[in-house]
Amino acid sequence: MVSIKDVAKLSGVSVTTVSRVMNNRGYIGKATREKVEDAMRQLNYQPNQIARALLKNQSSLLGVIIPDVSHPLFAELVNWIESYASDKNYKLLVCNSLSDKEKELHYISMLRQNRVDGIVMASHTLDVASYQDTGMPIVSFDRVLSSNIPYIASDNYKGGELATLHLIDRGCKKLLHISGPLEYELLANRRSDAFQLTCIKNGIEGDCVEGAHIKATFEDNWDFIDKNIGIQKLSAYDGVFCSNDIMAYTLYVYADKHNINVPEQLKIIGYDYHSFTRMLRSPALTTISQPIDAIGNSLCSTLIELIENPEAGKNKNVILDVELIQGETT
Amino acid sequence: MVSIKDVAKLSGVSVTTVSRVMNNRGYIGKATREKVEDAMRQLNYQPNQIARALLKNQSSLLGVIIPDVSHPLFAELVNWIESYASDKNYKLLVCNSLSDKEKELHYISMLRQNRVDGIVMASHTLDVASYQDTGMPIVSFDRVLSSNIPYIASDNYKGGELATLHLIDRGCKKLLHISGPLEYELLANRRSDAFQLTCIKNGIEGDCVEGAHIKATFEDNWDFIDKNIGIQKLSAYDGVFCSNDIMAYTLYVYADKHNINVPEQLKIIGYDYHSFTRMLRSPALTTISQPIDAIGNSLCSTLIELIENPEAGKNKNVILDVELIQGETT
Repeated sequence: MVSIKDVAKLSGVSVTTVSRVMNNRGYIGKATREKVEDAMRQLNYQPNQIARALLKNQSSLLGVIIPDVSHPLFAELVNWIESYASDKNYKLLVCNSLSDKEKELHYISMLRQNRVDGIVMASHTLDVASYQDTGMPIVSFDRVLSSNIPYIASDNYKGGELATLHLIDRGCKKLLHISGPLEYELLANRRSDAFQLTCIKNGIEGDCVEGAHIKATFEDNWDFIDKNIGIQKLSAYDGVFCSNDIMAYTLYVYADKHNINVPEQLKIIGYDYHSFTRMLRSPALTTISQPIDAIGNSLCSTLIELIENPEAGKNKNVILDVELIQGETT
Repeated sequence: MVSIKDVAKLSGVSVTTVSRVMNNRGYIGKATREKVEDAMRQLNYQPNQIARALLKNQSSLLGVIIPDVSHPLFAELVNWIESYASDKNYKLLVCNSLSDKEKELHYISMLRQNRVDGIVMASHTLDVASYQDTGMPIVSFDRVLSSNIPYIASDNYKGGELATLHLIDRGCKKLLHISGPLEYELLANRRSDAFQLTCIKNGIEGDCVEGAHIKATFEDNWDFIDKNIGIQKLSAYDGVFCSNDIMAYTLYVYADKHNINVPEQLKIIGYDYHSFTRMLRSPALTTISQPIDAIGNSLCSTLIELIENPEAGKNKNVILDVELIQGETT
């Protein structure tokens, strides 16, 4: 690797002068500057950002911890975060926790050791205290960690309300909700709260089945439905609000295979509207769209603000609006 | 942030002694070791990996440049690369080139400046020479860059042959192939070669339409089909081999909307079998499965071998086997 010494040697100046040219510090004559810049080009010299990071105590690295980048929601989220980070000259270290406590702890420690400037937490398997202890800028997706840690989320309550009201508007009389796992205080749980309250307010029967930590595969979702609901129980409902689109799609196929007509006998609405759902045409799912682009941008811009201006960045929670997408399943 | 000095102070020894304990160098008495380890735990001390990287001239960072992490193929690829890297104590910097030359060049330069130990190149918009010049370990996905740069790919030729023979076996007489963009010498182009040769060998009429650099959205693929093929031309064929599953799915919907029965009148086969296709049930696509897990693992293990043992790692090209997945579209 070409070093600053090689540049100094070729341009016939001192290392200090090369460093001044690179950092735009002190007075440098035009001829000297050109000589140094020529030498840098000629040698294809790349300044050592690691040395700079150590010197400036700033790595321009961001960490993002997600459950699984192969899940369409998190893949898109990482895409938007990386795109924003890159525009601001930050680099992104991606960590898949696989929703495993040990792995999540390991990644937090690894990211601290690598002196990342901040972390986007979108995997939530630890107690809230574990995140407060890290002593570094953190922004959270969909979870309140502490009053010092900003969170970004879609308007989960409104999304749950929109979904439930839509099913009621379509004439449903007995509703089912398949939530996410409720063990952690995630903001996504507001979807379930909204479902229950909206049913009560409208005098509609509404039951809940709590989701489990399962992989986002068709087979795992199918097994979940078969074991925890089953065709007999499902037949008693005329509308289901699923807390994510993968579950909603699997439920559609499950109903279809068991000769329940969607949407005539059973109406199904999901939540997310990520790339999988946007691609899907048979059927087009009715769902609640969360603005994944805006969530990714907000996560990253809030984190960078927190890094560059800690006081201004605090308490900058962001709740982003959601929207009903009318498909063919309601 | 707690420093090594704080650890030295609390344990009552010198910084050199703490450093020796951390690096397991020189003789350290048991009592001293325990005192230092206690202090590290008490202070929640995290060694500065950036300082270590500079000292050891090894960052344990890997870069991966892909077109777009929100594409299901690349999302899965990154997932497997990260998982393997994490097991080997490497960290992954993810870069989305958006198939843009400027961005790709910028990322290569950024990764060099950050002294990553090596790069997985899975975005290919530059001339081969640009990659040879980087002077650092590189492994390529699906492209031959030089004899010094190992490549990993699925058996694209066999995949194209399997797909074409399958359509012929199913009775197709006039075939169409929608390839990827052919401007770069990508190994994926072997799918097209195999299609053409297999048609000739079997005395079957086979036409090709060259794909374009489009986003992996339904709308972009639909527009591509409508503009470059259209319903009249499509009606003349009884089998289509698409070079990727997103195109195959869009073509299925396009045919269906225009009252062409799949598979009765038109048989469709794709390529990839990524998470989108594995999720899809209406219809289940017939496709060629490339082993994305094994490709990701190979990309990462070959890169790490090249980093840790440059001579042994050279010329370690890997071609991984593919498999026909029978769905409902043929």
